[in-house]
Amino acid sequence: MADENFFYNQGPISLADIATLSQSSLFLPAHLQPDELIYDVASLDEADNKTITVLNNAKYLPVLAKTQAKACFIEEKYASKAPKSLALLISANPYKAYALTGMAFYPQIKPQAVIAKNATIDSSAVIGENTNIEGNVVIGANVKIGKNCHIGTNTVLDQGVVIGDHTYISSNVSISYALIGKQVLIHPGVRIGQDGFGFASDFFGHYKIPQLGRVLIGNNVEIGANTCIDRGSSRDTVISDGCMIDNLVQIAHNVVLGKNCVIVAQVGIAGSTTLGDFVVVGGQGGIAGHLAIGSGAKIAAQSGVIKDIQAMSEQGGYPAMPIKQWHRQTIMLKKILKEQMKTND
Amino acid sequence: MADENFFYNQGPISLADIATLSQSSLFLPAHLQPDELIYDVASLDEADNKTITVLNNAKYLPVLAKTQAKACFIEEKYASKAPKSLALLISANPYKAYALTGMAFYPQIKPQAVIAKNATIDSSAVIGENTNIEGNVVIGANVKIGKNCHIGTNTVLDQGVVIGDHTYISSNVSISYALIGKQVLIHPGVRIGQDGFGFASDFFGHYKIPQLGRVLIGNNVEIGANTCIDRGSSRDTVISDGCMIDNLVQIAHNVVLGKNCVIVAQVGIAGSTTLGDFVVVGGQGGIAGHLAIGSGAKIAAQSGVIKDIQAMSEQGGYPAMPIKQWHRQTIMLKKILKEQMKTND
Amino acid sequence: MADENFFYNQGPISLADIATLSQSSLFLPAHLQPDELIYDVASLDEADNKTITVLNNAKYLPVLAKTQAKACFIEEKYASKAPKSLALLISANPYKAYALTGMAFYPQIKPQAVIAKNATIDSSAVIGENTNIEGNVVIGANVKIGKNCHIGTNTVLDQGVVIGDHTYISSNVSISYALIGKQVLIHPGVRIGQDGFGFASDFFGHYKIPQLGRVLIGNNVEIGANTCIDRGSSRDTVISDGCMIDNLVQIAHNVVLGKNCVIVAQVGIAGSTTLGDFVVVGGQGGIAGHLAIGSGAKIAAQSGVIKDIQAMSEQGGYPAMPIKQWHRQTIMLKKILKEQMKTND
Repeated sequence: MADENFFYNQGPISLADIATLSQSSLFLPAHLQPDELIYDVASLDEADNKTITVLNNAKYLPVLAKTQAKACFIEEKYASKAPKSLALLISANPYKAYALTGMAFYPQIKPQAVIAKNATIDSSAVIGENTNIEGNVVIGANVKIGKNCHIGTNTVLDQGVVIGDHTYISSNVSISYALIGKQVLIHPGVRIGQDGFGFASDFFGHYKIPQLGRVLIGNNVEIGANTCIDRGSSRDTVISDGCMIDNLVQIAHNVVLGKNCVIVAQVGIAGSTTLGDFVVVGGQGGIAGHLAIGSGAKIAAQSGVIKDIQAMSEQGGYPAMPIKQWHRQTIMLKKILKEQMKTND
Repeated sequence: MADENFFYNQGPISLADIATLSQSSLFLPAHLQPDELIYDVASLDEADNKTITVLNNAKYLPVLAKTQAKACFIEEKYASKAPKSLALLISANPYKAYALTGMAFYPQIKPQAVIAKNATIDSSAVIGENTNIEGNVVIGANVKIGKNCHIGTNTVLDQGVVIGDHTYISSNVSISYALIGKQVLIHPGVRIGQDGFGFASDFFGHYKIPQLGRVLIGNNVEIGANTCIDRGSSRDTVISDGCMIDNLVQIAHNVVLGKNCVIVAQVGIAGSTTLGDFVVVGGQGGIAGHLAIGSGAKIAAQSGVIKDIQAMSEQGGYPAMPIKQWHRQTIMLKKILKEQMKTND
Repeated sequence: MADENFFYNQGPISLADIATLSQSSLFLPAHLQPDELIYDVASLDEADNKTITVLNNAKYLPVLAKTQAKACFIEEKYASKAPKSLALLISANPYKAYALTGMAFYPQIKPQAVIAKNATIDSSAVIGENTNIEGNVVIGANVKIGKNCHIGTNTVLDQGVVIGDHTYISSNVSISYALIGKQVLIHPGVRIGQDGFGFASDFFGHYKIPQLGRVLIGNNVEIGANTCIDRGSSRDTVISDGCMIDNLVQIAHNVVLGKNCVIVAQVGIAGSTTLGDFVVVGGQGGIAGHLAIGSGAKIAAQSGVIKDIQAMSEQGGYPAMPIKQWHRQTIMLKKILKEQMKTND
């Protein structure tokens, strides 16, 4: 159960309403009615008979058999494995159905719209209605913030920054040279819009190249804590709609992410590289500069990508190669070593 | 010598008192008495005849022979190698003895307990006695802070956060959804309690899973600058007593660290992975999600762990394997390459 | 074209003046005069007939042939490949010439020197003339700041910190135990001077070693967003003149960087390692502790360095080896795997 000191459960919600909001089909055992109330969401092993759970992965079928939940999101093909007393909500994507239900129980609560007295807001800035601005926030000249936004404590929006409606920015964030879309979620400590790492060099040292682009962030983007996104040098750095970016990620100048990319923690993407849509990069992966990564490509954690990658291709390794080849190489090395150890005996 | 503009030396301390506080046995050359005063700690090569030093590693025996120090922490087995004029403090763990002595000369100085006028403290928050709260700090509703704490400039403690006694939090830190123990040391820029990276996906995009757990941090934990610890999704993220966490580390939702783990800089631990006690992870190492790492396991720097690891096992490589196997593989590859180069000649 | 909401173009500048400031030789087509005005800098593909561009890499020769620019920085050997209508500025280092020109069009603008009313400045601090101090800045006892500096919003300079002239510090930065030179550029979220990761351990836990050194940063250094530089334990951590450090870099206690090193994003350098001058470390590279890396060494992205590296040597791989050997090993493994796959057919 979520700690009531931190979370506000908006339930209960009836099974019928959950089926509707999650686009699932409700199948009830004889003793339950569609107006049966559900009080919370919970994982299979922590659920009790007031809660709804989800079978998200076939490997948890044994846990499903013993779950205490009242209801469960499940794919049709596994329905026969569920306990007979369980209400089933059949969905082609049970985890999505669970996500939608979870958000209904625990919607993002925007604090009451107050503009803190000790926020510093330039007189030329425009703040949309119902937007909340916390203490010590500093908002520069010509900044435009949409409606229903939240700007967290100690966050700095430098001159000219634009923030779309319903965007939530947490504490201690620095944003400059950026246009940010709607429904964006920015976690604490994020740095957006600082200079990219560009310079010419000679025997005497390094000479800074002015970084004259911006950062453009689309709608429905999430950006993890302490992640850094540099502004462009000659073109803009672009994060397209729906991208999910985890903590401590580095996105260099001129990088372009297509729609709905997933960038896991501590990934680094070097300058001027372009990703298509729905690209997934595993944790600590690195992509060199000036590359093109095709839509739907998947890059394994810790891989080092140094060549273009075709759409839908999966890669892994250091340097990265097609993932099957990498797995084979790993197995082959183990085998060769084993044989060599025998020979040495 | 430590720069007096930054450090406050609380010495001198007599050799007898140092022996007591460091649990060492004092062996004196004829010309020294137990009440001889020591004025500072210093490394073997920088020590002078007012200071105490330590032999921490046998490879420094040649430096020991030439040290100018007045006294030295040392293991019994190396005592005969020390210059005859040196006072010896024999200890089974000389580096620990040196650490305790260093902390006696330079105790953590908590600034005088003042609550800055421009701190913003919710009226429902409870602040323990002798706690120092610096400028621009923001403390939310129902926060509880113990006694003798320090909350550094521009730090934000969101609603409901609990901080134990004697905990020191540096500047520009963001903490939410967290219960934090006693004697914890949190360096600048740390982010604790933000959403984990959890969502369901389909062809149209990504759907956020509410993150309903907390972050529980035990006693005597140290957390390095700009490190991120996400709160749990279905259970709590847990950092047990005595863990040492370096800078820029990523700890994902639902991760559990046992007691006294050592997590070196830039390590990433993915969601729902559990570490036992005294696990050591070298710099930039990565551990995949949903794994169990046994107590006392050691994981080499930059390794990529993708399977469970047994207690006391040492692993390295990408993907990680038993460390001897990894070293052998490295050597074998070198050998094969050399032979191939010859053949090509 | 740079977005006028964010960037202040100080042009136009005549071709003759550009040649002078960039130390280039001007070669004009018949229809142009030295007083022809240039209005902006732009990349080869985005340039129009009011702008100057650069040929920085032979692979862009096809783009040069079609550029719409009025003028171009170029090496003498490629001059014959340029369109006949283009004004050429011949330089041995066209990218440096372009950098100098870019900085002339877009000089770093220091905000007007104002000391914000809500900055908190200890009465013992000394602030140089024409220095700008933004909102919520906190400046401790005995801090000394030079002239023409900028200290960004929410930045904290702890007691005793010294900042040289013309240094620009962005928002949300934490600095303690540090002496910082002139013309330094520090991006948002940087952490300088916190405790290094040093402790003794035994069966019961870990014992902190006091960190008694400082951080010394030279002149003309740039430090990227959210980068961490720990102070020394027994000696100082040193970043020498002209170093360029990217985002999210970890520099541990006692590390010494020589002059003009280039440290790309997410690199980690472990304790007490020393780099010579002009060392380049690629993104996500790691260097173990207590090593010596010779001047001019180049370390490939993601490499793991565990041994000393000689001056001018290039290394790559995990663990790192001479880069040619690493490339050969990569190719050899591919070949062996291919042969084995055939044999298995």
